[in-house]
Amino acid sequence: MLKQKNIMDYSVGDDAHLFLLLTKIDKKTTRTGKEFLSLELRDISGTISAKMWDGFEVFFHSASEGKIAKVDCKFDEYNGTPQLIINRIRLANESDGVAHSDFLPRSQRDFEEMKAEWNNIVESLTNGDLKTLIEKIFDEETKEKYFNVPAGKAWHHAYIHGLLEHTLEIIKICKTACDIHPELNRDLIIAGAILHDFGKVEELTYETSFDYTDKGKLIGHIVIAAMRIEAKAKAISDFPEALKNQLIHLVLSHQGKLEHASPVVPKMPEAVVLYHADEMSAKSNAYLNVAKNDRQGNSNWTNFIRLAETAIYIPPIEGDDTPKDSFFD
Amino acid sequence: MLKQKNIMDYSVGDDAHLFLLLTKIDKKTTRTGKEFLSLELRDISGTISAKMWDGFEVFFHSASEGKIAKVDCKFDEYNGTPQLIINRIRLANESDGVAHSDFLPRSQRDFEEMKAEWNNIVESLTNGDLKTLIEKIFDEETKEKYFNVPAGKAWHHAYIHGLLEHTLEIIKICKTACDIHPELNRDLIIAGAILHDFGKVEELTYETSFDYTDKGKLIGHIVIAAMRIEAKAKAISDFPEALKNQLIHLVLSHQGKLEHASPVVPKMPEAVVLYHADEMSAKSNAYLNVAKNDRQGNSNWTNFIRLAETAIYIPPIEGDDTPKDSFFD
Amino acid sequence: MLKQKNIMDYSVGDDAHLFLLLTKIDKKTTRTGKEFLSLELRDISGTISAKMWDGFEVFFHSASEGKIAKVDCKFDEYNGTPQLIINRIRLANESDGVAHSDFLPRSQRDFEEMKAEWNNIVESLTNGDLKTLIEKIFDEETKEKYFNVPAGKAWHHAYIHGLLEHTLEIIKICKTACDIHPELNRDLIIAGAILHDFGKVEELTYETSFDYTDKGKLIGHIVIAAMRIEAKAKAISDFPEALKNQLIHLVLSHQGKLEHASPVVPKMPEAVVLYHADEMSAKSNAYLNVAKNDRQGNSNWTNFIRLAETAIYIPPIEGDDTPKDSFFD
Amino acid sequence: MLKQKNIMDYSVGDDAHLFLLLTKIDKKTTRTGKEFLSLELRDISGTISAKMWDGFEVFFHSASEGKIAKVDCKFDEYNGTPQLIINRIRLANESDGVAHSDFLPRSQRDFEEMKAEWNNIVESLTNGDLKTLIEKIFDEETKEKYFNVPAGKAWHHAYIHGLLEHTLEIIKICKTACDIHPELNRDLIIAGAILHDFGKVEELTYETSFDYTDKGKLIGHIVIAAMRIEAKAKAISDFPEALKNQLIHLVLSHQGKLEHASPVVPKMPEAVVLYHADEMSAKSNAYLNVAKNDRQGNSNWTNFIRLAETAIYIPPIEGDDTPKDSFFD
Amino acid sequence: MLKQKNIMDYSVGDDAHLFLLLTKIDKKTTRTGKEFLSLELRDISGTISAKMWDGFEVFFHSASEGKIAKVDCKFDEYNGTPQLIINRIRLANESDGVAHSDFLPRSQRDFEEMKAEWNNIVESLTNGDLKTLIEKIFDEETKEKYFNVPAGKAWHHAYIHGLLEHTLEIIKICKTACDIHPELNRDLIIAGAILHDFGKVEELTYETSFDYTDKGKLIGHIVIAAMRIEAKAKAISDFPEALKNQLIHLVLSHQGKLEHASPVVPKMPEAVVLYHADEMSAKSNAYLNVAKNDRQGNSNWTNFIRLAETAIYIPPIEGDDTPKDSFFD
Amino acid sequence: MLKQKNIMDYSVGDDAHLFLLLTKIDKKTTRTGKEFLSLELRDISGTISAKMWDGFEVFFHSASEGKIAKVDCKFDEYNGTPQLIINRIRLANESDGVAHSDFLPRSQRDFEEMKAEWNNIVESLTNGDLKTLIEKIFDEETKEKYFNVPAGKAWHHAYIHGLLEHTLEIIKICKTACDIHPELNRDLIIAGAILHDFGKVEELTYETSFDYTDKGKLIGHIVIAAMRIEAKAKAISDFPEALKNQLIHLVLSHQGKLEHASPVVPKMPEAVVLYHADEMSAKSNAYLNVAKNDRQGNSNWTNFIRLAETAIYIPPIEGDDTPKDSFFD
Repeated sequence: MLKQKNIMDYSVGDDAHLFLLLTKIDKKTTRTGKEFLSLELRDISGTISAKMWDGFEVFFHSASEGKIAKVDCKFDEYNGTPQLIINRIRLANESDGVAHSDFLPRSQRDFEEMKAEWNNIVESLTNGDLKTLIEKIFDEETKEKYFNVPAGKAWHHAYIHGLLEHTLEIIKICKTACDIHPELNRDLIIAGAILHDFGKVEELTYETSFDYTDKGKLIGHIVIAAMRIEAKAKAISDFPEALKNQLIHLVLSHQGKLEHASPVVPKMPEAVVLYHADEMSAKSNAYLNVAKNDRQGNSNWTNFIRLAETAIYIPPIEGDDTPKDSFFD
Repeated sequence: MLKQKNIMDYSVGDDAHLFLLLTKIDKKTTRTGKEFLSLELRDISGTISAKMWDGFEVFFHSASEGKIAKVDCKFDEYNGTPQLIINRIRLANESDGVAHSDFLPRSQRDFEEMKAEWNNIVESLTNGDLKTLIEKIFDEETKEKYFNVPAGKAWHHAYIHGLLEHTLEIIKICKTACDIHPELNRDLIIAGAILHDFGKVEELTYETSFDYTDKGKLIGHIVIAAMRIEAKAKAISDFPEALKNQLIHLVLSHQGKLEHASPVVPKMPEAVVLYHADEMSAKSNAYLNVAKNDRQGNSNWTNFIRLAETAIYIPPIEGDDTPKDSFFD
Repeated sequence: MLKQKNIMDYSVGDDAHLFLLLTKIDKKTTRTGKEFLSLELRDISGTISAKMWDGFEVFFHSASEGKIAKVDCKFDEYNGTPQLIINRIRLANESDGVAHSDFLPRSQRDFEEMKAEWNNIVESLTNGDLKTLIEKIFDEETKEKYFNVPAGKAWHHAYIHGLLEHTLEIIKICKTACDIHPELNRDLIIAGAILHDFGKVEELTYETSFDYTDKGKLIGHIVIAAMRIEAKAKAISDFPEALKNQLIHLVLSHQGKLEHASPVVPKMPEAVVLYHADEMSAKSNAYLNVAKNDRQGNSNWTNFIRLAETAIYIPPIEGDDTPKDSFFD
Repeated sequence: MLKQKNIMDYSVGDDAHLFLLLTKIDKKTTRTGKEFLSLELRDISGTISAKMWDGFEVFFHSASEGKIAKVDCKFDEYNGTPQLIINRIRLANESDGVAHSDFLPRSQRDFEEMKAEWNNIVESLTNGDLKTLIEKIFDEETKEKYFNVPAGKAWHHAYIHGLLEHTLEIIKICKTACDIHPELNRDLIIAGAILHDFGKVEELTYETSFDYTDKGKLIGHIVIAAMRIEAKAKAISDFPEALKNQLIHLVLSHQGKLEHASPVVPKMPEAVVLYHADEMSAKSNAYLNVAKNDRQGNSNWTNFIRLAETAIYIPPIEGDDTPKDSFFD
Repeated sequence: MLKQKNIMDYSVGDDAHLFLLLTKIDKKTTRTGKEFLSLELRDISGTISAKMWDGFEVFFHSASEGKIAKVDCKFDEYNGTPQLIINRIRLANESDGVAHSDFLPRSQRDFEEMKAEWNNIVESLTNGDLKTLIEKIFDEETKEKYFNVPAGKAWHHAYIHGLLEHTLEIIKICKTACDIHPELNRDLIIAGAILHDFGKVEELTYETSFDYTDKGKLIGHIVIAAMRIEAKAKAISDFPEALKNQLIHLVLSHQGKLEHASPVVPKMPEAVVLYHADEMSAKSNAYLNVAKNDRQGNSNWTNFIRLAETAIYIPPIEGDDTPKDSFFD
Repeated sequence: MLKQKNIMDYSVGDDAHLFLLLTKIDKKTTRTGKEFLSLELRDISGTISAKMWDGFEVFFHSASEGKIAKVDCKFDEYNGTPQLIINRIRLANESDGVAHSDFLPRSQRDFEEMKAEWNNIVESLTNGDLKTLIEKIFDEETKEKYFNVPAGKAWHHAYIHGLLEHTLEIIKICKTACDIHPELNRDLIIAGAILHDFGKVEELTYETSFDYTDKGKLIGHIVIAAMRIEAKAKAISDFPEALKNQLIHLVLSHQGKLEHASPVVPKMPEAVVLYHADEMSAKSNAYLNVAKNDRQGNSNWTNFIRLAETAIYIPPIEGDDTPKDSFFD
């Protein structure tokens, strides 16, 4: 894994040699007619604009979005926003030993620990049918994708291993619900939690950046998961029909309401538990991230967050000097 | 097929010997303590209440809802509503040569003609992949169910062969749209029309009465159809992935809006055509049926129809006598 | 506490001497002109109709809804529904040693255990301001009401001690969320959970039956709680203004959406966690109760539940005989 | 009609002499203080920006939006977007023989053929009252406007003759519905289709560009049409009152729902057919246009279309090279 | 006008000779087979059920709903609800000097005073065009209907002269708004208020009971009014086009929102004033009536009012003995 | 109070010495690398951009948003928008005798007159409890804030004394409603009107600009007012509980609908009157302001107003030369 200083940690005037992922590339012209290269580049800590004024033609014709570049540059700013001025640039090659995953955000949790936790949960299932089904669905290739895919493009758990982290949180919450109500079908809920967002494996791409696939936009992760369960359950002899329908129901109804794209609403106590566990995991992750990253100036608020339909409040830390507005100096 | 006079055509005082389907059965007690048998019975023309005052014990212990009974009865009325007074009753047996389908409403269109029309449409598909897929989905058993199932429990095309009639109407409307816009993918629309409500084969039961199955309520006909297409297309070597996703998209989006239980909205011109053709076929069938059957007294209106969110207007026929609403005479 | 056999456990023909709570009382007339007393009575297990044919005049003039009666009766049925035929009846008097609480449903959980759990939670708060505030709010009289009041009239935790049971469930779920996200303000969430439905103490009456007070209907439990927190925090010197506003925000926003009667939406991660913990506790309790009590005949479904906007599915138990639905056997 | 090469077909560096419609005109200043003329111009194929650096004062004082200009110019580009650099410019005069209609988009269908089709439909009406009414409404001047007006400002059939084309499509779809259901009142539906958007004649201007009139915004095309029908039917002796109300009902309800600005919902089978035929014609036209014109780069999707509440999918053509999106090659 | 004691003021056992309006008439049969006449009758104070056991055949064949009957009867009750037992009955004839209006509720305000107030308002208009238009619309016949028609079937001002009373209230409120904002077009608002519900003249029937006409249900009072204004303004030479459109706009938008059946939303300050004045007049009338008439038992609440989406609170009168529920007697 | 010419009344090229309020301050860099000061400044008439090219370093380090500056400047324009070029600038000091209120918009009505009107209204209350309560709530400090605060940030009455002006309008409208319906509780409505937006005293800041406080965003003015009434009523011995609940109900329900952030809907005639009086005052103020200030070019319309969900129409003044679009010059 790539070790280099994050772009967010440099200061204006610093020089640097960095590998960066190319997320936009254009040739533009100043009002006075001079051509220049306009780029957007990212490392694991975020995104930065860049300009290159000379000697970019060869690079421009070989490069494209999604490629990794090695840049020799100086940190600068333009109207208060940081930017890079590039002196030299080339595409990375195999011997550089860099990969796209070096430039994508990833879960803060330890990956090996999360995998072990997930495996233990599957191991703990006592319903043989559900356990067999999950083992059949998760062949090695599928499991690798499932362990890597983010849970979304931008809103919550939007980083490598995000779906895994999100799923483990949901299971933890669902287990609490099962402790409260032992009459709930624990194995059904856990299998539902494991599979509820399974379709994101096909709905999202995450190799060079996070985006939706055509299949994802035409069918959606909910129905993709349902189709996979149906296919794999059919391949198991005597898989109980009622149990299969219940599991598919949990997956289909996990967004809770028709207008949130669930084709059926939750019709079982287990489904309603899964729905709210999913919401709690998703929203608390999203709100905490926003509160950490989007504070507006000296205020105690982020800007308006469309998906939350509000700005988020960030409590002032006690002992903190809150900004005081005296009228005159 | 059973030949007997419809119950709607008898008058008060008539005696009759009829085969009728038992849709409710209860033993009740009058205020003065006398026990009697209270029944609801149906033939192909509708439903009628019935009472039996004596000698019903043997029958009561052998009978249950969904069975066919032979009744010896007199037509009577109670507080203005027609009812039967039963003298003798027994369950039908095989030698009576009656079947449940004798008591269920069915399409007015000729069944053989509809089947031929459907077969011709499939035959006319020029896209080999879609044609193969449809032939694979419609094995003999499936085709028989598909040709018999109603399109719904009560609202539109709610009769035997209803789904077939409804599908043919949609295809006719879609063909008009294709004539207007030759750039539409005709075969994709037709395949989508054929399969859009396919899931009703598993969503509904129609043997003794029309109702939803557990699977239908937990998963819904939309996803049932998607799962079937996925499974059958996978079994065809080299079925084009993009085409499969488009076809599933048409099925998933055919109810047009998330709040109408489609998990994705129409995202292709073909999908939006199918959505409105389905609506036009369903609504015109439903509104015409309601207008024919639910006129309120002498008014030009039906009562309030919940699914239409309005009462329906029935234009007065010029020179017509006002509508007759007595049940008998 | 009253010890007598539950009315739901008697059979037709049984004679009984019972204390029952009077929930409806009317004098009616048969078609033939005979007057009789028509009653609805309840014990802890449910409600039953009753008729008394003679000698009821004295009782009728002294009785009213909400009083407790001692009845000498026989179990009977009328058109398939159980009813009591009363021979003698009188109002209970103090020496009978019965109380309204003997006739109201109550939590299945051990009351002493729940109180201890609640006290431990308050004890565990490390934020001195919040702890002081809660101790100030919960004087002995308030605490007793809070420990007894149901969480609602009918939908979830609608029984004596219901609010306490509901609050403990929410706290358990919130603690899981805090384990997942240690950066959440644990004490704030717990104080919010303790107080979120505090206003039900004034919104509901539960002495003779569960109903809303005028204040409850005019102001609502959400604002009642906010006003109490404001008043009690003001009485604590130097209670931090920002903390008070956050706590009131959690209470006000706990129903999650304006259209659910929260005057503000959740604007903090802690508020969004509390909202979903509340939903999960309420809905899982409600759905499980409905599934246990409202199965329709032999089907796997309850009837349509308005607040769930669906019928609830009750999975068939494998190897189980079909459910018995006769009231008496 | 003006014959000149479309601006979309020129390349960078080309010189041209063109008549163009002025849609925006401003005088601006560079950072260095130099004044220049900034224009937006359109021909029938689309819109382009333009700059003029010298000698524009006389023109600037006589010109205004909506005028036609003759320009002597060179095709250039600025930051990747095409623009014109104007050397000389003057307003068109009558002897130039150009008209605004030369610069407005128009239906692809043959105008004479559409007129004939429309006339035949009117001719085919068998209900004398409806036929007389339509002939009375469509005097020569009205008919000309009706034949020219677009069906909307931008969404569907937004070009000269658009309303006519749209109306003919609806009638074709309605005829299919009448073939399916012969009990529908064919003449009523056709008259409703002819008049449903009649009000657009007064709601829209289309002489120099497509826009709403004050009357259109204050009253709307639906009520404008209703008022015209009322007035013209009153002028026909013995026009049947019930028929008039039905026809106005079809016009008023053709947008199907109150929230779509219909003051009544469809209450007749004929009204529900017209509603869905209108939707099908409008949406299929709009989606096909968007799919043809708004593909985003190399993707299979348009950008988000607000009125469709989704992006539109454009299936990849098999064996096709990826789409070319450079403006000049 | 008919002078007789109101049916609501009689007691059980009283004999009476009354003129009553027949609102329902049926022949029914008891369980024991005896036929009887079942009626619903109304006077100005309300509605009552009635039974007649013998000698009703001649009356039954001549009578129908909407006729006035003279009855010789005794006040009785059945299961706690008052009813009449009829001894003799005949239809009223002209010499009886009774009219339907004797049996319909009417405004409490003095009719002559209201007419004078309305005439003064019209007289006070300073805009000649608007004044002429209103005089043209209100010929004698129209004015009489307008002065008599109720403002609705049941919700607000649902009595004879109700529209007039409602209109005068709106004008009073609008005048206050004009006092606050002298820049409002006072004459336009007043003309809009006078005409906003004008269409109810054709939307409602009120001769024998209050109901909607076919035209009312197919077109609605909003568009009916717009069509009348258009027709009458056209007949005035040089009526200003912009003023006419503004006036029609006020009428069309007076229900404030598309989903309340206004085809356009208010787009002028005058329109928004009229909308809220209408709401205030309608709702305060409706809520006050409900509070006066629908108190539930001893509670301070009416039952749930669908159009208000709530029960209405009726404050207890101070010094009043509120019912006290002691637990034991 | 500051006397100086409004910035909106200067012309390009004018020199001026002005006190202005600093609303934005940034240091920026031109493309050629030159630093400059970029400011936004306001006086009572509006806002203007400003640039300062030299000698701004000292000022930049002492200045911040919300301070008042004395500027020596020239009026200029940039791309058609007016801007200031600043020669010299310094912060205002106390001896300058200027205050923030000199730069904020204020009500057009006479402040002393409004205060007197408000005092008279309070004086006129006949209900001693309500009068005492209001006097207790409005101590001198509170009254001063209440008399100064705007009724909102931008939409209606968004100026100093705005809440007072708005409240007086509502009371005027409510009095009209009480004249129409003498049975309304006049004192309750007036007290409700006085207090309905009381919470804005704590919800908004208006010292240097109009904005929401943290408390305002977390709790909202509705609940802030309820808490204050509760606290002050508690401090009055024997304040009637029912009256207090009614008053709080009026405040809580004054936004009319849950989705408008009222935690209860109006459940009393008085509450529904207050709701519509508030709407009428707010909307007519907002629409009239928009119509006065936002006309788009030569059209009769403002641009789209998000809170009105429409553009607003501004009637052409008769005799006015409306813009005529001739096609050629």
